[in-house]
Amino acid sequence: MMTKEEILQSLAIQTDSKLILVVIDGIGGLPVRGKTELEAAKTPNLDRLAPQSICGLIDPISYGITPGSGPSHLALFGYDPFRYEIGRGVMEALGIGLKLTEEDLTARGNFATVDENGIIVDRRAGRIPTERNREICRFLQKEVREVNGVEVSVHPGKEHRVVLLFRGKGLRDDLTDADPQKDGQKAKGTEGLHPEAQRTADVVNEYLRRATETLKSFHPANTILLRGFSKIPDIPSMSERFKLKPAAIATYPMYRGLARLVGMDILETGETLREEVETLKNHFDQYDFFYIHFKKTDSSGEDGDFKKKVKAIEEIDRVLPSILRLKPDVLVVTGDHSTPAVLKSHSWHPNPILLHSRYLRPDRIRRFTERQCQKGQLGRFPAVDIVALMLANGLKLKKFGA
Amino acid sequence: MMTKEEILQSLAIQTDSKLILVVIDGIGGLPVRGKTELEAAKTPNLDRLAPQSICGLIDPISYGITPGSGPSHLALFGYDPFRYEIGRGVMEALGIGLKLTEEDLTARGNFATVDENGIIVDRRAGRIPTERNREICRFLQKEVREVNGVEVSVHPGKEHRVVLLFRGKGLRDDLTDADPQKDGQKAKGTEGLHPEAQRTADVVNEYLRRATETLKSFHPANTILLRGFSKIPDIPSMSERFKLKPAAIATYPMYRGLARLVGMDILETGETLREEVETLKNHFDQYDFFYIHFKKTDSSGEDGDFKKKVKAIEEIDRVLPSILRLKPDVLVVTGDHSTPAVLKSHSWHPNPILLHSRYLRPDRIRRFTERQCQKGQLGRFPAVDIVALMLANGLKLKKFGA
Repeated sequence: MMTKEEILQSLAIQTDSKLILVVIDGIGGLPVRGKTELEAAKTPNLDRLAPQSICGLIDPISYGITPGSGPSHLALFGYDPFRYEIGRGVMEALGIGLKLTEEDLTARGNFATVDENGIIVDRRAGRIPTERNREICRFLQKEVREVNGVEVSVHPGKEHRVVLLFRGKGLRDDLTDADPQKDGQKAKGTEGLHPEAQRTADVVNEYLRRATETLKSFHPANTILLRGFSKIPDIPSMSERFKLKPAAIATYPMYRGLARLVGMDILETGETLREEVETLKNHFDQYDFFYIHFKKTDSSGEDGDFKKKVKAIEEIDRVLPSILRLKPDVLVVTGDHSTPAVLKSHSWHPNPILLHSRYLRPDRIRRFTERQCQKGQLGRFPAVDIVALMLANGLKLKKFGA
Repeated sequence: MMTKEEILQSLAIQTDSKLILVVIDGIGGLPVRGKTELEAAKTPNLDRLAPQSICGLIDPISYGITPGSGPSHLALFGYDPFRYEIGRGVMEALGIGLKLTEEDLTARGNFATVDENGIIVDRRAGRIPTERNREICRFLQKEVREVNGVEVSVHPGKEHRVVLLFRGKGLRDDLTDADPQKDGQKAKGTEGLHPEAQRTADVVNEYLRRATETLKSFHPANTILLRGFSKIPDIPSMSERFKLKPAAIATYPMYRGLARLVGMDILETGETLREEVETLKNHFDQYDFFYIHFKKTDSSGEDGDFKKKVKAIEEIDRVLPSILRLKPDVLVVTGDHSTPAVLKSHSWHPNPILLHSRYLRPDRIRRFTERQCQKGQLGRFPAVDIVALMLANGLKLKKFGA
């Protein structure tokens, strides 16, 4: 029996048609005074496009599941998010723009405070300022660069947070957390979950020993706790899976990193929506699949700022005509997950989706909103199926069976 | 864990209720001047039935997948099209009306031209006329009837095309194509993909050697290329799976062949819709499940003839009352896939479906069209679930669990 993934791969063909996937981060919302952010926004361009498109609601993962950016993007890129897992360490590394290879073992970490007996007294080292974090990392990096032939680098995040990168042949990520997750316990090292991981555990523990030695005089940041050991998943590229030549346009490192994981070329771009669309325009001849990511809707949702999210939506609506002028064969507008201002966080609510191409029976819905899209013919479906629909509408799939 | 298939099988019971599945081949379309073929057609009878039925949209296989007739019919008959695969050779054999047994290995083939060194110079033997193909097949069949104890028969298709049938115990279909798929290469034989298939490969290769020997004086048709080796899948019958006594009414051999694969009785019928419905009427007492297939919608769609497809739909609408007069307990009207005239081919678009029985909450939609059915309570769902719905509405399924 073939899986749907295998069948798609066997049907995909390369053609000249151009597909654009517009991801409005955290687009879905919840009503405030009766209207969701999308319903409250003035979106004349999306509203003009919706009745010429087919619409629906996507579940990023499955009913009730609130996804992080990793699984939700994997699904949007056509990868089963239950099958391909992206570890915490990898996500953090991507988030600060590290380019990972198959030899890299990542971990997210905290600077922490231990007493003279090695008991953790503050897991967050008093939330040292980010600037101080950077200084300490610079110093530590100079002192410990390598352990047992494995390259090590420490990268500052915000406040007490760091990302560790171990680079060497044969490193494994089946390791326990080197972090008891609460104060009052002894900082212990990591352990391999299988005998084959022991060598990697030894490297990590030796690093932690030397780092703690080095950090003696940096109280309260006098040790490091590590968790979420992970390597990039063994994931086939979009070109392998779908015969696409894909490119990504995103202002935040994490999304560029996720796109790189599935083999997209990452296009240099600016900080604004206009610059992102300009980048799309400048490279439109060179690729046949574009992922373009708009972030502000999510961050204003996370801030709980309903009005700011409405404004972010309206800003995106204004750049839509420049995208349409490129005349893509298939355009999809959707989100990776909902981020309702009411919840100040990602949520499990489905997202509206609109697909525009020349081969469809338009839905004649009135607006691009959660409740209007729900009336569309795409129905409610999992995000992982979007790419198959895009390929079909771009005439990039052969017939299945005779 | 039980699969849905196993559960259905355990729940099915035999009763006297009568189910009819009307398959309008390639029914789904795309708009031309704003209307799909169904929307443009005058279908008073379907329109009268729709508001007394429950409606929806079916995906033959899955979002974005364009099916051939094999997988799409398997799904309509209640078989997972990812699980049961029908090979190219089998489909071709069914298409020309061959009755296959479990002992048969099929392949589709071409007469081709090779030069004195065995290099293929024309994979299609100059597209010889069909009549010439028949003559050559007759001659070849007389000369080579059997190889190493395996019966062989060669059956003419159109122009240069043939179907080969090898009949014998223990033949296998895990064979490479004996066809390099392009000119300028040496015609090579087939190879077994596993050691157990070597004996079958030897039989096929010996046949090809003797056929080429025999065809020496038939230039340009002086050899045969074979591909798509396949046997009928090991598939439980509908009577085993669903406790049904099923019959098929179809004018084209391929659909009769597909129905035979799942154990339906094939009823002799004429060439017209009226004759098909007459056949249904004459056998209505003898079976409890009828599959009736109307082909013209698909062929006019494939021709890109929008108006002809509209007329074909209207013709089907006119025979509907004769079917209703039989008072089936459950009637389903749907299609195996879309064949929009705009695309001149099968497509991935979902098909409208209507289910009529006495146990439902009618949808009160206005017409049997893609966009009206989309508003129905069946929602959008995969075709493979239709049979379960029909069984339920025919009170042919026990309760699941206590």
